Amino acid sequence: MSRRIRIKVAYDGTAYHGWQLQSNAVTIESELNRAISDLLGREVTVTGASRTDAGVHALGNIAVFDCDSPIPAEKFAGAINARLPEDIRVVLSDEVSSDWHPRHQDCRKTYEYRIRAGRCMLPTERLYSHFTCHRLDVEAMKEASGYFAGEHDFASFCAAGSQAESTVRTIYDIEVVAFKESVFGIDPDKTVVIRVTGNGFLYNMVRIIAGTLLDVGLGRKKPGDIPDIIKALDRRAAGPTLPAKGLTLIGYEYS
Amino acid sequence: MSRRIRIKVAYDGTAYHGWQLQSNAVTIESELNRAISDLLGREVTVTGASRTDAGVHALGNIAVFDCDSPIPAEKFAGAINARLPEDIRVVLSDEVSSDWHPRHQDCRKTYEYRIRAGRCMLPTERLYSHFTCHRLDVEAMKEASGYFAGEHDFASFCAAGSQAESTVRTIYDIEVVAFKESVFGIDPDKTVVIRVTGNGFLYNMVRIIAGTLLDVGLGRKKPGDIPDIIKALDRRAAGPTLPAKGLTLIGYEYS
Repeated sequence: MSRRIRIKVAYDGTAYHGWQLQSNAVTIESELNRAISDLLGREVTVTGASRTDAGVHALGNIAVFDCDSPIPAEKFAGAINARLPEDIRVVLSDEVSSDWHPRHQDCRKTYEYRIRAGRCMLPTERLYSHFTCHRLDVEAMKEASGYFAGEHDFASFCAAGSQAESTVRTIYDIEVVAFKESVFGIDPDKTVVIRVTGNGFLYNMVRIIAGTLLDVGLGRKKPGDIPDIIKALDRRAAGPTLPAKGLTLIGYEYS
Repeated sequence: MSRRIRIKVAYDGTAYHGWQLQSNAVTIESELNRAISDLLGREVTVTGASRTDAGVHALGNIAVFDCDSPIPAEKFAGAINARLPEDIRVVLSDEVSSDWHPRHQDCRKTYEYRIRAGRCMLPTERLYSHFTCHRLDVEAMKEASGYFAGEHDFASFCAAGSQAESTVRTIYDIEVVAFKESVFGIDPDKTVVIRVTGNGFLYNMVRIIAGTLLDVGLGRKKPGDIPDIIKALDRRAAGPTLPAKGLTLIGYEYS
């Protein structure tokens, strides 16, 4: 009897060379394979939903693995965590049907990109956000973000050299929120979070959308420029690819 | 002409052996002395407001140093930051009178202690909060916190072996706030922040208050027990000293 176990995985990507297995580099996938193989006493390979880049964080990436173990599905999380470093945590585990594949499902996928705007980077935020010492026009960024919603050809927001067959994707929801780092509002500077939910994203798409919205916040582009940037179908029309460390994969919702 | 420069310093305390100079250990103070001495070309020693323990973080510790340099006071922040690692930042610099001392002033001092309550520690929060896998009764913690406000003898909340002459301190304000880690409320678990403002704190006082409020949140103590714990004047009556990593020195307000 083979069972398929699904895990929801959170990680601080700072110390890892991304999700995907590599020779001679420690990755999220290699750590999970090692921990689960150690638990089950045989070689196990996980299949992940999203192959996040080096330095990208996650609250809820998804992976599956097959096993014959009688361990109750919900107990896997704690048992795997006991064999993982503290910067990777299995948040939840459950059992799915043996044909359930994390990349072959209709889903809504959510990312957040954080930008710290202020006098200097906050040391405790330095690993999880991009920094700018310039003032941001957050209202302009909110207005600009609205143009991304819907089904579009996002070729302008795809890193060169991508292998994607189609560059059409649907963004269901995009929001820009500014907040003070201290929950009590003592902090005079602010962090801007861009949250985007879609049916899938091209390579570097969220980091390029964030770079384009940052350009708007800095006054280098206007909100009304966004439709033309999308229509251009040209990577050079959009803003820069912001650094990996500001990006967090928040999670998946499967239908 | 000797000038006294005041700096406001933020740091991630994870990698440091606290604020105070030590032989054979890197501290916040040793890094600041090195950076400022390098900038000014002679040996400079800072005097800090708070000698935070190893692992404690800060958004706004205060220090002063004396110099003859003609550098405009507000330019010191950037010049010193260029010589510091990214986990220490001078947020602001200004000039004060030559008799201004950061520990001999009437002030209001604010700390925050963060407790993550949920299924597992979040990897991106692991360096900045204490973790419990138990549910917290946040309303009981809020009620209990109210008993700490005002002038009291806090001997029950002072680490054994402290050299303090008096254990009487005044807490001006104390609040307990629960929030979701994702600003969009996706995260099902929560972080509880205890924020306390006073005229000064005994050794480990905030970490012991946090441990006592955690006991209340876990149902091990009742809110109404707090007055008796204060009156006991006995360290053993209070809760545990929570770990340093959950504590952040938010800042000072001088009158």
